[in-house]
Amino acid sequence: MRMLDAVLDRIDRDLEPSLERLFALLRIPSISTDPAYAPQCRTAAQHVAADLAGIGFRTEIRPTGGHPAVIAHCEEGEGPRVLFYGHYDVQPVDPVELWAAPPFEPRLSSLPDGRKAVVARGACDDKGQVMTFIEACRAFKAVTGKLPLPITLLIEGEEECGSKHLFEFVRANANELRRDLALVCDTGMWDPKTPAVTTSLRGLLYEEVKVRGADRDLHSGLFGGGAQNPIRVLVQILAALRDDQGRITLPGFYDEVKELPADIKAELAALDLTPARFLGQVGLSAPAGEKDRMLIEQISTRPTCDINGIIGGYTGEGSKTVIPAQASAKVSFRLVSGQDPDKIRATFRTFVRERLPADCSAEFIEHTGTPAIQLDFANPALAKTRAALAQEWGRKAVTIGSGASIPIVGEFKRVLGMDTLLVGFGLEDDRIHSPNEKYDLTSFHKGTRSWARILAALSG
Amino acid sequence: MRMLDAVLDRIDRDLEPSLERLFALLRIPSISTDPAYAPQCRTAAQHVAADLAGIGFRTEIRPTGGHPAVIAHCEEGEGPRVLFYGHYDVQPVDPVELWAAPPFEPRLSSLPDGRKAVVARGACDDKGQVMTFIEACRAFKAVTGKLPLPITLLIEGEEECGSKHLFEFVRANANELRRDLALVCDTGMWDPKTPAVTTSLRGLLYEEVKVRGADRDLHSGLFGGGAQNPIRVLVQILAALRDDQGRITLPGFYDEVKELPADIKAELAALDLTPARFLGQVGLSAPAGEKDRMLIEQISTRPTCDINGIIGGYTGEGSKTVIPAQASAKVSFRLVSGQDPDKIRATFRTFVRERLPADCSAEFIEHTGTPAIQLDFANPALAKTRAALAQEWGRKAVTIGSGASIPIVGEFKRVLGMDTLLVGFGLEDDRIHSPNEKYDLTSFHKGTRSWARILAALSG
Repeated sequence: MRMLDAVLDRIDRDLEPSLERLFALLRIPSISTDPAYAPQCRTAAQHVAADLAGIGFRTEIRPTGGHPAVIAHCEEGEGPRVLFYGHYDVQPVDPVELWAAPPFEPRLSSLPDGRKAVVARGACDDKGQVMTFIEACRAFKAVTGKLPLPITLLIEGEEECGSKHLFEFVRANANELRRDLALVCDTGMWDPKTPAVTTSLRGLLYEEVKVRGADRDLHSGLFGGGAQNPIRVLVQILAALRDDQGRITLPGFYDEVKELPADIKAELAALDLTPARFLGQVGLSAPAGEKDRMLIEQISTRPTCDINGIIGGYTGEGSKTVIPAQASAKVSFRLVSGQDPDKIRATFRTFVRERLPADCSAEFIEHTGTPAIQLDFANPALAKTRAALAQEWGRKAVTIGSGASIPIVGEFKRVLGMDTLLVGFGLEDDRIHSPNEKYDLTSFHKGTRSWARILAALSG
Repeated sequence: MRMLDAVLDRIDRDLEPSLERLFALLRIPSISTDPAYAPQCRTAAQHVAADLAGIGFRTEIRPTGGHPAVIAHCEEGEGPRVLFYGHYDVQPVDPVELWAAPPFEPRLSSLPDGRKAVVARGACDDKGQVMTFIEACRAFKAVTGKLPLPITLLIEGEEECGSKHLFEFVRANANELRRDLALVCDTGMWDPKTPAVTTSLRGLLYEEVKVRGADRDLHSGLFGGGAQNPIRVLVQILAALRDDQGRITLPGFYDEVKELPADIKAELAALDLTPARFLGQVGLSAPAGEKDRMLIEQISTRPTCDINGIIGGYTGEGSKTVIPAQASAKVSFRLVSGQDPDKIRATFRTFVRERLPADCSAEFIEHTGTPAIQLDFANPALAKTRAALAQEWGRKAVTIGSGASIPIVGEFKRVLGMDTLLVGFGLEDDRIHSPNEKYDLTSFHKGTRSWARILAALSG
């Protein structure tokens, strides 16, 4: 343990330069969903690769069908070989006018309660979290000259657009990426003082549907009442997706959804997640999901349906008396263990088509389809990680389910046969995907220390 | 009748110079919605005023809050005093690349079926139609030395941007504009051979509603299932506006809607407006309104509800797993005689508010609220006009309802207590508001002759 103490001490002393390294990465506007930012995505990949090479990793920037991926290997030390996965790409920044400062000019701010935080797009998701792991590796190398166990990193650039080329990449490079365990730092703490290991992730089915009517936009005075209105048709179909008890109405949607074991459900209940605590932070007060479920179930262990975007007709200022030729929506389903995204996609499309009136047609775009993930509670790495986290944070590390998907984790299981340990230091108020995204300085600092402890524990 | 025959003969012989006078007006690009064309709007007003002064009208160009209006008086002859209303402004021309020739260089073209037509922006709407009336006045003056009845003209310059300053102008000049009957030439024939008098215009209530949920955009993985989604709330409310029989569900919406008299309904049925003829032109085939109504009722004599625009969440390319903070829609109702726009606005807002779940609020923007217009079928001017049109066109003139509003007609009724006779010679294929707008030479020529007959009939 004297070695680990020295590593932790190094991390403490190195905090300022390590923050500057995080800022350098945050300054790169690597927005993956917007093709205009492709050069910046490449710059971010090069930046990460150069940093890892500087620590002593064998590093390559590999092409994919989209933005490139960074692979880095360092086969030193004892213990299981681990694959660390993260992403260098970030979400778009709109509405940019709601940012207090430019989203790609990171800075350390003080929160009203005295906490310090790094504010920038990607501060938490996922650049800040990735850097906690890289900084832990850097400290090991600096203090001991080597890593405590063989590490491979895979840092991709398309997580925010569904990792759409990564699956093929993982399949094509399966032997190189198949390790004993995957580590992912893209999740959160239970609260600012309580570390957590995420043992389940919801899956995601994301569809876009466009409804078409007349072959041109029509004047609502001349045609109103006689012509189908694709906006109306679309909203009527979307409204039918949910009943008044908050249940999704797609036929068979819940068929494979299992009830939680009684003890797990009791643990969830004991966390006592109140609407005031969870929803209050964003100006809400009442759970909006299935009426017979706890809020914590609604957001983590139950499937959902959300409309993520809708557009049709005239949306500028003032009024226009138009019946548009088309309208479209982006619709997503969060899935839980047992639900098959392909089956639900087919059910959704049938649901829409069956409700189309005469003169309307529907066209679909497939964005994402990944099943949920469930980690075996008996995995020994889980116990070691919980112990390491408890030592760093001074309290028991809880196991939780995450409401969000990390599609690649499913792929690691299916294609590489590899379990994933999800540990992260994000907080509920980090505003990921929103203006003024931040990452607490404590998350960054103690997160780095946590990874040092976890790597030491796994190597033992 | 020898006098009228002489006037009609004069119109025939004067066709070529009268066309040249129409062309001269069409060459002025009086686009009212674009402030860059304000000087050209003034030029058009001056042109019309000078033309009317040349015929013998006392003419003035009057300022309004926007583009000026032309007022012309000539108090000669017997019979009721009439106010003719038209507009000298035109729609923008974009997309200009779809015009076969420059939109402000009018020319006479041959259509594929042999019809000849004037092609230019404003050829029909409303310069061509206005000139049919002015040319009829000119012929009377040339042949008889005076008009057959006292005529006032009001030619405004903001119809294409909602006549926004005209209401105030009418109120301010009520005594001068209050005549026994208003004549408006901004409507169409039933078909190229069948003249029509439009006896009703639907009103319009146009509202914008914005639903708000959380105080920021949320990640659908973290909050999905627990947080209200304003898009979902909005589509559920909008979907509830209509039942599966195509009826609007707002409480009391149909309370003041009267059934058509049996003979009028029979006349409408006899017009035999088929879906193939009316909807087929825009790629549709099935009437989409109230299931127990004829298509012609759905589009002209029954009230409607249309969603004219909707927007919320992520609408760019690709996917974003967002639960947006807000979503909004533009919703309009076409109203029929008896329906009170203010009452229906209040009902609509209550309908929305009553369906808002906890954590959601709604905000409304009022765009338009004008009641429908219905001409009394017993008005003697209607019978005289129908007879005059039948003589000119050689077949019965039908009475029809227009699905669209002409807001000033309502103002004439409300403020001046004056009924309006809507007679026009536009055709379905005139492409008003679109590239290559045209006006059939027959519409122009026989339209002018029709007005001569109508003025003679009204004076009798």
